[in-house]
Amino acid sequence: MNALLRRIAAEFGTPAVVVDLAKVERNIARVQAACDAAGVSIRPHIKTHKSPVFGKMQRDAGAKGITCQKIGEAEIFADAGFDDILISYNLLGEEKVGRLARVMQRATVTVAADNPTVVAGLPRAAELSGRTLDVVVECDTGRKRAGVETPAEAVALAKDIASRPGLTFAGFMLYPPENAWRETQAFLDAAMAGVRAAGLPEPRIVSSGGTPNLAGLGKIAGVTEHRAGTYIFNDRMMVACGAASLDDCALTVVATVVSRAAPERGILDAGSKTLTSDTGGLDGYGLILEHPEGRIAKLAEEHGFLDLSRCNERPQIGDVVRVIPNHVCVVVNMVDRLVATRGDDIVGEIPVAARGRIA
Amino acid sequence: MNALLRRIAAEFGTPAVVVDLAKVERNIARVQAACDAAGVSIRPHIKTHKSPVFGKMQRDAGAKGITCQKIGEAEIFADAGFDDILISYNLLGEEKVGRLARVMQRATVTVAADNPTVVAGLPRAAELSGRTLDVVVECDTGRKRAGVETPAEAVALAKDIASRPGLTFAGFMLYPPENAWRETQAFLDAAMAGVRAAGLPEPRIVSSGGTPNLAGLGKIAGVTEHRAGTYIFNDRMMVACGAASLDDCALTVVATVVSRAAPERGILDAGSKTLTSDTGGLDGYGLILEHPEGRIAKLAEEHGFLDLSRCNERPQIGDVVRVIPNHVCVVVNMVDRLVATRGDDIVGEIPVAARGRIA
Repeated sequence: MNALLRRIAAEFGTPAVVVDLAKVERNIARVQAACDAAGVSIRPHIKTHKSPVFGKMQRDAGAKGITCQKIGEAEIFADAGFDDILISYNLLGEEKVGRLARVMQRATVTVAADNPTVVAGLPRAAELSGRTLDVVVECDTGRKRAGVETPAEAVALAKDIASRPGLTFAGFMLYPPENAWRETQAFLDAAMAGVRAAGLPEPRIVSSGGTPNLAGLGKIAGVTEHRAGTYIFNDRMMVACGAASLDDCALTVVATVVSRAAPERGILDAGSKTLTSDTGGLDGYGLILEHPEGRIAKLAEEHGFLDLSRCNERPQIGDVVRVIPNHVCVVVNMVDRLVATRGDDIVGEIPVAARGRIA
Repeated sequence: MNALLRRIAAEFGTPAVVVDLAKVERNIARVQAACDAAGVSIRPHIKTHKSPVFGKMQRDAGAKGITCQKIGEAEIFADAGFDDILISYNLLGEEKVGRLARVMQRATVTVAADNPTVVAGLPRAAELSGRTLDVVVECDTGRKRAGVETPAEAVALAKDIASRPGLTFAGFMLYPPENAWRETQAFLDAAMAGVRAAGLPEPRIVSSGGTPNLAGLGKIAGVTEHRAGTYIFNDRMMVACGAASLDDCALTVVATVVSRAAPERGILDAGSKTLTSDTGGLDGYGLILEHPEGRIAKLAEEHGFLDLSRCNERPQIGDVVRVIPNHVCVVVNMVDRLVATRGDDIVGEIPVAARGRIA
């Protein structure tokens, strides 16, 4: 077991969620350079790290603004001085609209909407804040999540936005399925033609998204910015889809083998309350770097069930190991603080300031 | 949409994790009465609620001590004045042992162990705290998680514990698979005979566990206490296995339908960062009380993908609904506060004080 893992266990206990800042900086720099080369701004999605500390690293490297999924995240980042915030989510109801207005008083905010009910509620935020609100139309080009399904609906919603007091139609938000360049281009072209034909102002923002889609930067003409979150840390899903190498994974869960009740199995002290039950379509609940043939076959809340049947060298009770989680964004959200390292040194702790800001 | 849901959404926003105290009290009273009737103490597992507020309700109803899974939980409850704490988990390493010693200075603690490596580390906690430490042997009677696999191993570990300075062998901890009464009884009888033959003191504690196993209270002769957590709130898994009715489910996630991009689908503002990806072997990620034929078919972090194809009445954008989660213990752990209601009234908020105490 290496000395750093021993020190982490002694100082913070296990499981601990640990981030290597050198890898973080390298991930940020690589994606920033790729976006610069493609002539597309990067607008990092802070849902992955939920921490102004990391947001500032991305901003200092050249990121243009940030993306938040929830108003609760935007509040934390506006408080920390972030000024250009896209909330990529339908905000609905008086409670949300009131909070939006208060964030608008201290930051420039753009929100996404995919339906007239949401749009109808937004003028109240402009009225309460005394500022106009930029709104982008969320478009679905195949993911079947949120987003209008046709260019005609996108144009109709753009007109609706433009007709409302205090709102400005600002453009389109896309989250294309992987490799759906052609379908997305066709949707975008038709929507752009529609808003031009309607005499609406030229869209300021055309936002694409997704860390896996960074591989296709520049493939959709007209895109001005890209939202990506996971690239800052990466995870087993990103390795599986080719968006990152194992060495690009900056975050690991440091955990201890606490039981070996039978030769072919063991228990890790990280369960679903640390690694989460997200599989991302992969086998098992994470990759143990020291025992890649071992499977985290099943989770209880605080137990990771190890299947060691295929391991030549099996871990002993007390061994401390590193796990690359399947999905890093949900793991960060389980803890209040990340342990920060740089190479072989422990640097300190970084608060996950917007952790659990679900509403 | 009912008035209470509208008030919750207006006051706290959605998603909100909401608990009905009247149902909580009823669940506590029912299980306490069942344990009293069976002559078995209840030692509630606080991993479900992670809140001294609920722990006190259980204690006031007659619970004998509490169960914690992690030392971080025990710290919170010892600070809140809980005095009889079983930590049902192998504690390993100097960091954990040091924290255990500090908890022992303010509460009576029993810990579980399933291997000699863990046992060898525990005398240091007794030494540091100046108190003896009761240790129970964790026994596996079929679940294949942690726990010694045979009565002979259990007896050997009991002798090991009894031979160590500062440690007292206190008994056995069981977590039987459902309906494994006979196997568990045979294991326990052999282990008890073994420790008696070895001249060890009579075990003070024989602890069984699991909310589904409450149905078999009294079926294992010699059991002195039962650890159960989920029964305080219940969830979709407990309904599925017959341990609770829908009406016994005290916790719901109150969420808003924020998108209806196509007739047969929609998006709920609760995703894997609220409901979690735990399926518990069930179809979908929760039961929508207002639309039981609707499926929460898939989750993204902040999106619940609704399949409404089988709904006669489909929810509209802006509708606020209640979701009974698959697994309540992991949902509580996602939030800092629960919204407390009683019938149709909002009572206040209850902090989830030990949330995220994974280490």
